[in-house]
Amino acid sequence: MKEMKKSWEDEYSVPFGEVDTKNEVFLSHLWNLMQETAWNHATHLKVGYSDLGEQKYFWVLSRLFIQMDEYPRWGDKIRVKTWLAGMGRLFALRNFSVINPKGKIISTARSAWLVLDLKNRRPQRVEPLFKRILPLLDRPAEAEEPEKIHDSVHPREENLFKVRYSDIDMHHHVNNTKYIEWILDSYPFEMHRKCYIHTFEINFLAESSHGDEISVHTEPFGDSPPAFLHSVFRKGDGRELCRARASWKPID
Amino acid sequence: MKEMKKSWEDEYSVPFGEVDTKNEVFLSHLWNLMQETAWNHATHLKVGYSDLGEQKYFWVLSRLFIQMDEYPRWGDKIRVKTWLAGMGRLFALRNFSVINPKGKIISTARSAWLVLDLKNRRPQRVEPLFKRILPLLDRPAEAEEPEKIHDSVHPREENLFKVRYSDIDMHHHVNNTKYIEWILDSYPFEMHRKCYIHTFEINFLAESSHGDEISVHTEPFGDSPPAFLHSVFRKGDGRELCRARASWKPID
Repeated sequence: MKEMKKSWEDEYSVPFGEVDTKNEVFLSHLWNLMQETAWNHATHLKVGYSDLGEQKYFWVLSRLFIQMDEYPRWGDKIRVKTWLAGMGRLFALRNFSVINPKGKIISTARSAWLVLDLKNRRPQRVEPLFKRILPLLDRPAEAEEPEKIHDSVHPREENLFKVRYSDIDMHHHVNNTKYIEWILDSYPFEMHRKCYIHTFEINFLAESSHGDEISVHTEPFGDSPPAFLHSVFRKGDGRELCRARASWKPID
Repeated sequence: MKEMKKSWEDEYSVPFGEVDTKNEVFLSHLWNLMQETAWNHATHLKVGYSDLGEQKYFWVLSRLFIQMDEYPRWGDKIRVKTWLAGMGRLFALRNFSVINPKGKIISTARSAWLVLDLKNRRPQRVEPLFKRILPLLDRPAEAEEPEKIHDSVHPREENLFKVRYSDIDMHHHVNNTKYIEWILDSYPFEMHRKCYIHTFEINFLAESSHGDEISVHTEPFGDSPPAFLHSVFRKGDGRELCRARASWKPID
C-alpha cells in the first residue's frame, strides 16, 4: 500500500487581485488556499471530493477558527501546511499553518468538517467512514475542536446581501468563503484601514442558495481590542445560516 | 544587460472555490490569473507595479477581449502565456493564451493598457516611457487592439450592486475583475446553467470607489447565438464606468 502522508504542503503566490488597499491578503482568499490544500491532502488520502462522491457523500465545513499574526502581501510566496487533528463522532478535524519564506508561521487555523449525505443533506458518523486513515492520528489526539459560538447577537447593525451566481459552488450552495467575505464587507471601510483581523471564528448552521437575501447582524463584543459578534440570517425564512466572532488589532 | 524575455508563462491550478456549479472556472478568476502573469512579465521587463510607482504612474486596464473555447475545471493545471502585442500612443497592448496540459490553446485574450499619473489620474504617452522594451515588439506589430464598443445600451434590465471592501484594490479603486463579475452576476441563473460565455469584451471608462452604487444595464444584442450589450453606471452621478458585450453558446 502506498504510504499515506500525515501532512500536506502546497506553495502559493498571493495575487494582486486578492490583496486589499493595505496590500494585505483578503482573509477569504487565504482560507480558499487553505481549503485547496486540504482538498489536495484529502485526495491523496482517498477521502477527497470524488472518493466521497462515489458514496454519495460530500464534505462540508462546520466550524473554523483562524488566527492571523502577519498578513502575506502581493507576490509573497507562502506555504500552506495541513494535517488531520482528530476524528470525533460527527467531526473530522483538520489544522493548518501558513508559513512565510523565512519559515515563520504567520497564521494558523483549526477546522471541523461534516460529511453530508448528498440526497438528504444529513450528517454521517465519520469514524466508520474513515477507518483507513485513523492510524494517521496521533493518540492522544491533538484534537482542538473549534469552539461552538453560544452567544446570540443583539444586532446594532444590519447589512444586506443577495446571493449571486459567483457565490455558488459545485455543491449548488453558497461557498463558505463568501460568508466570511460578507461579514468582513459589513464593517466600515475605516475599520479595515485602521485595524486588521487578528482572530476570526465561524460556525456554519445552514445552507443558502442563489437569490436568497442575506442579512448580516453585528454587535460589539469587546472594546480593547475591538471585537464583534455576527449572525448571518436568510431574510426569507429567518433561518440563521452562520454565527461568527472577530477580534481586531489596531495597525501600529 | 540581462536578457529580456519576449513572452512569459506561469502555471496555475484551478481551485475549488473558483469554479461554478458546472465545474467551469469563473471568467473573472481566469482573467485574474492572466493579469497576474502579465504583472510577472512586466516586473521581469522592469515596467511592473513598483517600477511605474517610482515614477508616480500606474497601469490601468482600458480594453479587454476574451475568447473561451473550453473552460478549465477544478484541479486542472493550466499554463498562461502573455506577450507584448504592440505599443500605440496611449495604449500598451498585451495578448494572452491559456494552454491545457495537452498543449491545446483553450482561451485567448487581447488587452489594452493605459499608464495613469498617480496624482491627476491622467493617461500618459506610453512609447517614450517604454523605449527600452520597444525592441521586443515584432515589426510590423501584431497589434490587435481590442475594439471600442460604440453601441450605447437601451436597457431592458437593470441590476444593482454596491461597492464593497472586498471589491477595492491597492489603487483604492474597484478592481477590474469585479465589473466582469457584476455583469455575469446580472444574468439569470438559468442562463449560466444552459450556456457558457464564448466571447466577452469590455471597455473601462471611469473608476469607482467604496460605497458607490452601481447599476448594470443589459440589452439583448443578438439571438443566435445569444449576445448582450451591457453598460455599467454609477447611480450617484450617472457616470458610465464601463461598457461590455458578451456572446454565449448553448451547452451541447
